[in-house]
Amino acid sequence: MRFHTRKWIKPEDLNPNQTLFGGKLLAWIDEEAALYVTIQLENKRVVTKYMNEINFISSAEQGDIIEIGIDVVKFGKSSITLACEVRNKMTRKTIIKIDEIVMVNLDEDGKPKPHGKTQIEFVKDRLNH
Amino acid sequence: MRFHTRKWIKPEDLNPNQTLFGGKLLAWIDEEAALYVTIQLENKRVVTKYMNEINFISSAEQGDIIEIGIDVVKFGKSSITLACEVRNKMTRKTIIKIDEIVMVNLDEDGKPKPHGKTQIEFVKDRLNH
Amino acid sequence: MRFHTRKWIKPEDLNPNQTLFGGKLLAWIDEEAALYVTIQLENKRVVTKYMNEINFISSAEQGDIIEIGIDVVKFGKSSITLACEVRNKMTRKTIIKIDEIVMVNLDEDGKPKPHGKTQIEFVKDRLNH
Amino acid sequence: MRFHTRKWIKPEDLNPNQTLFGGKLLAWIDEEAALYVTIQLENKRVVTKYMNEINFISSAEQGDIIEIGIDVVKFGKSSITLACEVRNKMTRKTIIKIDEIVMVNLDEDGKPKPHGKTQIEFVKDRLNH
Amino acid sequence: MRFHTRKWIKPEDLNPNQTLFGGKLLAWIDEEAALYVTIQLENKRVVTKYMNEINFISSAEQGDIIEIGIDVVKFGKSSITLACEVRNKMTRKTIIKIDEIVMVNLDEDGKPKPHGKTQIEFVKDRLNH
Amino acid sequence: MRFHTRKWIKPEDLNPNQTLFGGKLLAWIDEEAALYVTIQLENKRVVTKYMNEINFISSAEQGDIIEIGIDVVKFGKSSITLACEVRNKMTRKTIIKIDEIVMVNLDEDGKPKPHGKTQIEFVKDRLNH
Repeated sequence: MRFHTRKWIKPEDLNPNQTLFGGKLLAWIDEEAALYVTIQLENKRVVTKYMNEINFISSAEQGDIIEIGIDVVKFGKSSITLACEVRNKMTRKTIIKIDEIVMVNLDEDGKPKPHGKTQIEFVKDRLNH
Repeated sequence: MRFHTRKWIKPEDLNPNQTLFGGKLLAWIDEEAALYVTIQLENKRVVTKYMNEINFISSAEQGDIIEIGIDVVKFGKSSITLACEVRNKMTRKTIIKIDEIVMVNLDEDGKPKPHGKTQIEFVKDRLNH
Repeated sequence: MRFHTRKWIKPEDLNPNQTLFGGKLLAWIDEEAALYVTIQLENKRVVTKYMNEINFISSAEQGDIIEIGIDVVKFGKSSITLACEVRNKMTRKTIIKIDEIVMVNLDEDGKPKPHGKTQIEFVKDRLNH
Repeated sequence: MRFHTRKWIKPEDLNPNQTLFGGKLLAWIDEEAALYVTIQLENKRVVTKYMNEINFISSAEQGDIIEIGIDVVKFGKSSITLACEVRNKMTRKTIIKIDEIVMVNLDEDGKPKPHGKTQIEFVKDRLNH
Repeated sequence: MRFHTRKWIKPEDLNPNQTLFGGKLLAWIDEEAALYVTIQLENKRVVTKYMNEINFISSAEQGDIIEIGIDVVKFGKSSITLACEVRNKMTRKTIIKIDEIVMVNLDEDGKPKPHGKTQIEFVKDRLNH
Repeated sequence: MRFHTRKWIKPEDLNPNQTLFGGKLLAWIDEEAALYVTIQLENKRVVTKYMNEINFISSAEQGDIIEIGIDVVKFGKSSITLACEVRNKMTRKTIIKIDEIVMVNLDEDGKPKPHGKTQIEFVKDRLNH
């Protein structure tokens, strides 16, 4: 799993218990997933279709730094399935884990469209061609 | 299921496909769930512990009005399990459904604490006592 | 008066006196009013034209839950006049009251347009027809 | 009336009619009023108590620049009454006018406190003493 | 140098050291610069091209009021160079100073376009003509 | 230079020219710099002291994905100097480059404090000890 985007927990990210608000975390994950898929499928029109079980394993506090990891589980015909883990950057303690996030590739009318991809690609390699 | 909070879809709630961004929707649901549990358990220290399968059934566009419905599935000892449905206010078309959201009641040290509740209460009835 | 939307007071909603910032509250009320009128008039092009006296009766603190109530005072030809009350969800203490909020129904050029409505309608009833 | 703070209308400030959202405007006004009073009364603990009639006279669009003007109407014992006008910076067309905004000076317990001021002061003059 | 826009430091503007977050300050400055240039050049299509050395001289805390000052250093052919200073409104202590901010005037295709201006103009004078 | 955090350009990140707002970009850079230094110096109390020349080389549009790269230029006694480049994730085109960002390590009273670091460390290595 590759960890890229990092977030700094600020006052507006907390719940009244003064720990990281779960909804904010889910919004960050969904954005990172969409962004990852846009890069892989070279298409900006992608949407989240499904997430399986979400376990909030540990929490985070104001001033903590977290990092979001994404991995590809499966390439479907017009979809792609990701796994996600968010952890504390300094302690590596897992905060949340989602085993399956299904993202769908869309055409201009918003209909699912085959993406023709079967494996992870790196932008570096694309640009070398 | 009771539907209370309403949201108006604005430009900052959209993904690049110009439909409602899934992450924003999850953040709204998590806030509504936490708020609902705070009212039921009369405790501001509640956190989200678990969500089961999330299906994004249909989408919404800028200017649409949606409403968020919450129901109690089960009262645990220190937890409470909710169900949630979000639908389009005008057409009643379901946008997302989550069957189980487990919220935990915490004490001042952030540890799970029994809440002693076994059924839905209405603020009106509490105030009449 | 029907109370629907609920808000949870967060750090970014406070003034330096650590109570709910009046401007945030007015923004929430205006959004709820616009949303309510959009539902009643079945038109997304509605704007706020006028509010009469605004009394900030009591305040709210971080972690409080408030609910926003709206009622129709009068159906005009191209306008609709609402009343609004915001109260603390747990104590029912009134936070703010506005007796008249005049909203105007617009056509595609942004000009006032008769809406033809004379009474409150429920989405449920519309869908049954 | 002195006009200081300027705002640039951005996508997130618009209503679905694509004009400046009234609630955003009211939030900006309330912040400017609180800020003005903090400067005059040399106290950060001030709250909005009352606004009289609010007339939305004209609107503004994305990319427009507006400026917010504030004047003192009256110095009360523990309050101060302001007038406010917001206008388009380029055309000087009035957008909104509020004749009375009553702000209250608070002590550390949040109770009204006499402020001892009877006229507008300029920071420049204070610093020269 | 003329100081117009004022900002009130709120919780969401702080870094974990509980002082004003530098990035927020730079965003406010850039917006004020763009807004100022839009007024001077009577064109909404302006972009920031360059800033020279940025010195964070002193800081600010929650509840402080700051004011942003802008001056024109030079009128170029399709550009305009500004100087900026931000200071604490109450103490006049300088917070940040930038000697050169180069803004570029663009045409409809996003290409630099001569603006024909050679000196500061006031909206009041323009409207009198 | 290592590129970690990625951002997706959304409507609220645009200037009226419909390209990425420079101020938003500077805020993202400052946050990434602070976050990077917090990780390196193992201290949450760090502030931005200085940035040298900022060149806005190319722009970005809504839906573009950018990535932020940070490198250490020099370890000072109580400071650390970074270089930063932001580029388009898909095309690798440089958007902005800053050669020197000086961040200062603070003690609990907000005074500069020696950090004792002389080279880049990886969290992985720290955790292995």
